[in-house]
Amino acid sequence: MPRLHAQFVLFDGFDPLDVIAPFEVLTAGSQLLGGTLAVELVCASGPRVVRSGNPQITLTATGTLDPDAPGYVVVPGAVGPVDGDPDAGDDTIPVLLGRFASSDAMPLIRRALDNPEITVAAFCGGSLALAMAGLLAGRTATTHGLGIDLLRATGVNAVRARVVDDGDLISGGGVTSGLDVALYLLERDFDPQTAHAVEQLFEYERRGTTWRLPRTGVTSERTSA
Amino acid sequence: MPRLHAQFVLFDGFDPLDVIAPFEVLTAGSQLLGGTLAVELVCASGPRVVRSGNPQITLTATGTLDPDAPGYVVVPGAVGPVDGDPDAGDDTIPVLLGRFASSDAMPLIRRALDNPEITVAAFCGGSLALAMAGLLAGRTATTHGLGIDLLRATGVNAVRARVVDDGDLISGGGVTSGLDVALYLLERDFDPQTAHAVEQLFEYERRGTTWRLPRTGVTSERTSA
Repeated sequence: MPRLHAQFVLFDGFDPLDVIAPFEVLTAGSQLLGGTLAVELVCASGPRVVRSGNPQITLTATGTLDPDAPGYVVVPGAVGPVDGDPDAGDDTIPVLLGRFASSDAMPLIRRALDNPEITVAAFCGGSLALAMAGLLAGRTATTHGLGIDLLRATGVNAVRARVVDDGDLISGGGVTSGLDVALYLLERDFDPQTAHAVEQLFEYERRGTTWRLPRTGVTSERTSA
Repeated sequence: MPRLHAQFVLFDGFDPLDVIAPFEVLTAGSQLLGGTLAVELVCASGPRVVRSGNPQITLTATGTLDPDAPGYVVVPGAVGPVDGDPDAGDDTIPVLLGRFASSDAMPLIRRALDNPEITVAAFCGGSLALAMAGLLAGRTATTHGLGIDLLRATGVNAVRARVVDDGDLISGGGVTSGLDVALYLLERDFDPQTAHAVEQLFEYERRGTTWRLPRTGVTSERTSA
């Protein structure tokens, strides 16, 4: 198998937990699979130190988001003060997501969505930002519970679930759903044994049913059985 | 209430998820409580950039671990290559924890354990490192499932649980148990409403029973009822 990339897209105000949790899941999964995935922190504007929504935490993007690299493009959400006031200049989560949605990352993520060799995985505010940028109209997706109505208003078939599989677009709910999304990718695209081994290593269990379209023919076969 | 500190102890090879998950839980909880907690990244040797066990991720300690500051001292575990060979010079998790256990952090954490105004919270390899340093003999604690036998061998009453409450020592199991430990601290030391609100924000639910000593008298009261 050719080496696949898992590009985590950093932007100013990202939520560190949204990044770190699936980053470590895919890193551990890749190690168990013999190094199948190149797991990377990237930024649309190239390598740089990116400040998160928590003033104490920055991460360093070591590469430029490449919509031609086969594998995954992973889009986290944002974090800001829970009691912030945008009128007072606070960088609240909606403000941060709005900036990200109008940034130079979006044309690249649009190209990634158009690339049949890439699956885009977005969760928490990340999927909402893609929707705000007009990238998800007509698709089925989820986001943080607080954003689900806004997601629907952008023309998305919004579903409340921890993980929604719409083929080359996998979306997840709030914050810790990023763990479930990454484990689901390992199970779907590699094997359940690897996903299970990482779950055990992280002392975590995915929960809830992953929403996805019925497999073609399954319903009618069952009906006629 | 005087301002309390939540000092997250960084050391070379720390597991980023062990730090970030409870860091964000306590940060969100503190915001909901009006800023009760000063949540900080610290290092025994003072402010510096600290490399994690993942070569792509560093965090910056902005303060020096202070065993006189009331509140919490939080001790994460380590992460290394899952297939590493220590004989080949790989920094495996046991190697990293051994170094941490013999580092200048331990005398400070011992002082924190002796300080009645501090609760030490350690999980994953963090509690194991404290035990390896001889700080937990005779205490009840837990760690990652892979380390539980070693924990017991250090003279700890080792219990398999996601969270173990031994008064001023709270310990947790592997990796994602850090979420449960931080939520438990919010519930125990502040109020269940704050812990619940953060759970909802993070779309997470703690699970399992927290091990702790029976409240004095409860058993006999029930028996005689």
